[in-house]
Amino acid sequence: MVPKVKRALLLIDVQQAFLHPKWGPRNNPQAEEEMLFVLNEWRRLGWEVIHIQHRSHHPGSVFHPSNDGFRFKEGFDPIPGETVLEKDVNSAFIGTGLEEHLRQLDVTEVVIAGLTTPHCISTSARMSGNLGFTTFVLSDATAAFDLVDPDGRTLDATLVHDVSLATLHGEFATVVKATDYVRALFPDNSGASLQCPLP
Amino acid sequence: MVPKVKRALLLIDVQQAFLHPKWGPRNNPQAEEEMLFVLNEWRRLGWEVIHIQHRSHHPGSVFHPSNDGFRFKEGFDPIPGETVLEKDVNSAFIGTGLEEHLRQLDVTEVVIAGLTTPHCISTSARMSGNLGFTTFVLSDATAAFDLVDPDGRTLDATLVHDVSLATLHGEFATVVKATDYVRALFPDNSGASLQCPLP
Repeated sequence: MVPKVKRALLLIDVQQAFLHPKWGPRNNPQAEEEMLFVLNEWRRLGWEVIHIQHRSHHPGSVFHPSNDGFRFKEGFDPIPGETVLEKDVNSAFIGTGLEEHLRQLDVTEVVIAGLTTPHCISTSARMSGNLGFTTFVLSDATAAFDLVDPDGRTLDATLVHDVSLATLHGEFATVVKATDYVRALFPDNSGASLQCPLP
Repeated sequence: MVPKVKRALLLIDVQQAFLHPKWGPRNNPQAEEEMLFVLNEWRRLGWEVIHIQHRSHHPGSVFHPSNDGFRFKEGFDPIPGETVLEKDVNSAFIGTGLEEHLRQLDVTEVVIAGLTTPHCISTSARMSGNLGFTTFVLSDATAAFDLVDPDGRTLDATLVHDVSLATLHGEFATVVKATDYVRALFPDNSGASLQCPLP
C-alpha cells in the first residue's frame, strides 16, 4: 500500500510589490501562470494551501500594508479554508508559526512556489528541508531579479535563478517543473487530477 | 560613545570530511588561511568562538563520527573556553541551541566563516540575519565546490561561490573579506588587534 502523504502548497510573496520597477529585470515571465496552475490543482483536490504574505514595518516599503504592493497579485487572493500567514523576514518559517501549523496538520511534504528564487523561496526551502519536510521547489513557478554582487557587478536574473535552484536540488529539496510535479502525482491520467481521489 | 557590540565568530564545518575527493573542484584554496587569521584575532581578543561541527547519523558518511572526516581540519581544534555545537542539517541554527546560546551571551553580531558557501554557510547566514543578528560573511574565508544543476549541467565552484555571496549581501548579511572586516574593527592600527581593549 502506498503510504499516505499529506502535502501543503506554500505560495510565497505573490504580491503586487513585485510589480514595482525598482526590482529591475526578471526571468520566468510565465511563473505566475504556473503558480495558478498548481494552485488550481490544489484547490480541486482540496489540499492545504498556505499563502505567505510579506508585511514590512517600514511605511516607505512596497510591502507595507498601507501600499497596494502588500496585496496579492491578481488571481492569488485566498479563498475560504486557505491559510494566510504573514512574515516580516525572508523565511516563511521565522515568526510565523508555519512549522507548528504544518505539524498540527500532519503535513510531511511541502511544495513551494512564489517569489523570489534566491531570497524568500530559497530561504524557506532550505528551512523546510532542514526541518525534515520532504520539500519540492517548482522551478518554473518562481522567478528571480538581477542581483548586484558585493563588487557592484550585476548578475543576470536567469543565472541567479539557475544557481539558486542548483544549490537547493538534492540538498534541501527536489527541484521540478510544476507540470512534471503534478504529472508524477497522477501518472495514470497525465495530471487530470479532478478524477483522483482525495488524500 | 560607541555602542558596545558583542561579536561571535561562527566557524562552520571546518572538518576533514571536505578533504575527500568526492566533492570535486573547489575554489578559494586559501580559505583556511583566512579562517585561521580570523580565529587567531578572535582568540587574542578573547571574543566568543563557536565551532559548528557536522555529525552525520549514517555510518557511510564522511561526516560520521566513526570516520576521520568528522574531525576538525588541522589547526582548527577548539581550545578551552570555546563552544562546540554539533548539527545534523545544513543550518547551524536548527537543532543546536545556537540562537539561545547567542542570546544568553548578549551577542548581537555574528561573523561567519567555514564551509561551504552555497550550503551550510549560506543557510546559516540567512537564518542569522532573519533572526535579527547583524551578520557578516567573510568571502575569502569560505569556499564552494562545483555543483550539478537539476538538468545535469556542472556549475563552476567560483560561479556558485560568487552568486551565493551576492544573494546574501545586503539582504541577510554584509559580505566582506576577512582582512577588511578586521581592519574596519580597528581602523587606527590596521588590524593590530593585540593592542585593542577587550569588549
